[in-house]
Amino acid sequence: MSDTQAVLIAGKWRQSAGDSTFQASNPKTREKLPDRYPVSPWAEVEEAIEAAAAAFEELGGLARDKIAAFLEKYADRIEARAGEIADIAQLETALGREPRLGTIEMGRTTGQIRQAAAAARERSWVNAVIDTSNNVRSMLGPIGPVAVFGPNNFPLAFGSISGGDFVAAIAAGNPVIAKANSSHPGTTRLLAEEAHAAAQETGMPAAMVQLIYRTTHEDGEKLVSHPLIGATGYTGSRSAGLVLKAAADKAGKPIYLELSSINPMVILPGALKERSDEIAAEFQASVFMGTGQFCTNPGTVLLLADEESAAFVENVKARFGSAPVGTLLSEGVERNLVAGVQSLREAGAELLVGGGQGGGDGFSCQNSLLKVDGDTFLSNPEALQEEAFGNASLLVIAKDSCQLKQILKTLEGNLTGCIYSHSGGGDDDLYSEIVPTLRQRVGRLLNDKMPTGVLVTPAMNHGGPYPATGHPGFTAVGIPTSLVRFGMLQCFDGVRQHRLPAELQDKNPNGRMWRNIDGRWTQADVAV
Amino acid sequence: MSDTQAVLIAGKWRQSAGDSTFQASNPKTREKLPDRYPVSPWAEVEEAIEAAAAAFEELGGLARDKIAAFLEKYADRIEARAGEIADIAQLETALGREPRLGTIEMGRTTGQIRQAAAAARERSWVNAVIDTSNNVRSMLGPIGPVAVFGPNNFPLAFGSISGGDFVAAIAAGNPVIAKANSSHPGTTRLLAEEAHAAAQETGMPAAMVQLIYRTTHEDGEKLVSHPLIGATGYTGSRSAGLVLKAAADKAGKPIYLELSSINPMVILPGALKERSDEIAAEFQASVFMGTGQFCTNPGTVLLLADEESAAFVENVKARFGSAPVGTLLSEGVERNLVAGVQSLREAGAELLVGGGQGGGDGFSCQNSLLKVDGDTFLSNPEALQEEAFGNASLLVIAKDSCQLKQILKTLEGNLTGCIYSHSGGGDDDLYSEIVPTLRQRVGRLLNDKMPTGVLVTPAMNHGGPYPATGHPGFTAVGIPTSLVRFGMLQCFDGVRQHRLPAELQDKNPNGRMWRNIDGRWTQADVAV
Repeated sequence: MSDTQAVLIAGKWRQSAGDSTFQASNPKTREKLPDRYPVSPWAEVEEAIEAAAAAFEELGGLARDKIAAFLEKYADRIEARAGEIADIAQLETALGREPRLGTIEMGRTTGQIRQAAAAARERSWVNAVIDTSNNVRSMLGPIGPVAVFGPNNFPLAFGSISGGDFVAAIAAGNPVIAKANSSHPGTTRLLAEEAHAAAQETGMPAAMVQLIYRTTHEDGEKLVSHPLIGATGYTGSRSAGLVLKAAADKAGKPIYLELSSINPMVILPGALKERSDEIAAEFQASVFMGTGQFCTNPGTVLLLADEESAAFVENVKARFGSAPVGTLLSEGVERNLVAGVQSLREAGAELLVGGGQGGGDGFSCQNSLLKVDGDTFLSNPEALQEEAFGNASLLVIAKDSCQLKQILKTLEGNLTGCIYSHSGGGDDDLYSEIVPTLRQRVGRLLNDKMPTGVLVTPAMNHGGPYPATGHPGFTAVGIPTSLVRFGMLQCFDGVRQHRLPAELQDKNPNGRMWRNIDGRWTQADVAV
Repeated sequence: MSDTQAVLIAGKWRQSAGDSTFQASNPKTREKLPDRYPVSPWAEVEEAIEAAAAAFEELGGLARDKIAAFLEKYADRIEARAGEIADIAQLETALGREPRLGTIEMGRTTGQIRQAAAAARERSWVNAVIDTSNNVRSMLGPIGPVAVFGPNNFPLAFGSISGGDFVAAIAAGNPVIAKANSSHPGTTRLLAEEAHAAAQETGMPAAMVQLIYRTTHEDGEKLVSHPLIGATGYTGSRSAGLVLKAAADKAGKPIYLELSSINPMVILPGALKERSDEIAAEFQASVFMGTGQFCTNPGTVLLLADEESAAFVENVKARFGSAPVGTLLSEGVERNLVAGVQSLREAGAELLVGGGQGGGDGFSCQNSLLKVDGDTFLSNPEALQEEAFGNASLLVIAKDSCQLKQILKTLEGNLTGCIYSHSGGGDDDLYSEIVPTLRQRVGRLLNDKMPTGVLVTPAMNHGGPYPATGHPGFTAVGIPTSLVRFGMLQCFDGVRQHRLPAELQDKNPNGRMWRNIDGRWTQADVAV
């Protein structure tokens, strides 16, 4: 097995003890790539967990600035190897090399890492609350070793050892055990090399970052529910995620999931009257971004039945028919997309264009547009909300505003929901009528813009009610907000000053950290 | 069934459609109390859920100040009927009338309600984050109708229609369906009368507060996992709580649980040398408070084997033997306590005093002190951590500091952990050695004080890692912090100013609310 890539456990790159392997594919050619990656046996996973627990103990005594320095060094190292990383990411995912992988996603990735470093230095994310008269003080402390399962669609910015969950867990003070996504193990390996080298250069504990490529499903469940694990971050398919969720829930271990989302978009009549073709063009750009493989891809569009809607449908149909067909991430995505479109048809949707496998290079499926009327949707709302992940979208035509609201009431939880409306206020009454229903079902509500852009800002919510995620109170994107997921609330009651963590002592540890002292937010010291 | 007490559904007191009933007991006499309370059938529970969902929709259009006015009116009404409420609470629980129920718990209850009202008015709890350059804004919005299951031990301050979960859910903007604790239904009924009257007087939706007394276990599971339910608050036994947790988790519905806690306390050698008898007296006062039926009752005391410890054990043993035996809340508590003490003995603990049923008025069990050495504890740590809820405690004698640390490592999650140490710093080395291990396993760490006092301050954490609760990031006590549990993160991306909730518009809605604008916490408006 010496031709099999090594795992990173307890600070060492070494051959896996496992005897089975897997290979990724080149989506453009449908052929297997040459490198073999191991399936780690349970003993190896457990060794990683124990090493992470030891690293967590070591971290307790380490200044938060050192973790920031590690992250900054890591960002520098990624940049120094950016070309090679983007090349292998393109080979494994068929996503665009430029600007998508090499510039946009790479820049977002190193940007996120540096933002997380800044958050670790600044420390306001710990939400320090100080009651001076009773000497009761609390903050979010690190939760413990974090397992991260990354998705297939953003090999860098959501990657298990480079993405949003990873940097949030590390910046919050926790070691990470990364489980590579099976569709881009080579990309993950290069990133892990840089992460580990940066960790060593900056004096992190040996097992600050660890990497395994795959486990059995059963061992995945044991990992997320292990007593020494603090929490898990998972982004991926709903079916696999729900199995991990059940295991983690049973053990009382927090698991933050991003599972699926059809990102409903409502286009109100005034907007269509005003700028139908413009909206169709925006929609086309959004829905085919990354061959439709964005978590926030607009998969369901709600319209009111009228002439403008009919024209919009024709416009979009023509765009779907003539747009180039992109390559999908994997054979699994191709299979699921073809099956997903077929399921929507079986549930009553009419196929306007596309639907067949192929049409592009390698793994691909024709650009698929479906349509269903409101009565049919309401007769089978669950099946008609099944996510068809990829370059497909469903138009739902409600007969009137009352039915539109009924349809919105049947929606499951989603990451986003958009409303397009007349710029001059012509749709305001209808907007007010439907927005409370949509608001409660989505994490992020957009006006007059497509949901595919997910800014890294503290005000972002990349989250939402189940089944978009497992809990509607948390976001996976946005620093420092995303760090909160990997903290536990720690209260200190009557604890002597010198025994308190620096963040809760009278003196503000850096003069910049925001703390809530006796009900006021301030960067000042506690007045003594 | 006209002699059965009415339920409060959809704004009306009415006879339950159910055909089975139950009665509470007088713990002092072990006799059943005359009033009959209904077990609500599923159709009735579902009607309450639907009414709550309608109330939730109505609430969306209601000014937050009106909810505050409702809470304030409710506090006034409780005070006007305080004597009657405390009388029936005493009858049903056998807890002390004065000062416990009538003064301390009553004052805490109305105080909490008024603090929650103030938080609803001030609104800082929504954690508004505004990114002005991108016009992305987020806050916690209400999560939806909340089901509250209250515990047996604080009929007022944790009561399902008057306590911490209730006020947090309401102040966050959610209607509540209260499920009374079966041991004090009469107390809950009187409180519900006042809550409902206050809601009507202040123009709340009809189903703002609803009350049922009991359901089947199966219907309880259906309630917490119902699509129209936003979240659940549960405080009670671990076994019943875990069944509800499994149902809610499967449906992706947040459930905040408080399940059990043995509240480990470590007394270091320097503290014993310095003030052994003083600590024994504090311990006695804490452990017998409410006949040991506090969530934060110190149930496990860790000592190092030496002469001072041996003397401390003798001192405590004498105190347990001579202290008056209190009455327990119910026959179930009595049965579980006798069985719990027996289980600890079977797991290897030695009974120093007590252990038998009786010894006090009505439901009671002798004050029970047990002891176990560190080797035995480590051979069976799970069984020796089983909570014996009531007037019992286990002393664990570690042979050295290394074994003490090993013992701490086996501890499950707890609400609190205390360390008593020498006031002059004589125990500082040992403190530093053990505190990281204890810190990670408890929600609140105390120094040199007993855990039974749980102040209502924003810095409090009445929470902790599983199985103390279901998620270590949340607190059930402390306003406004406890409101966060009943919020969902709502982001507004590119939403026009007049469509934003008042909390996120440029103008600060009341000039007092704290908001994070472009990284700075401020009470000012957004600069335009």
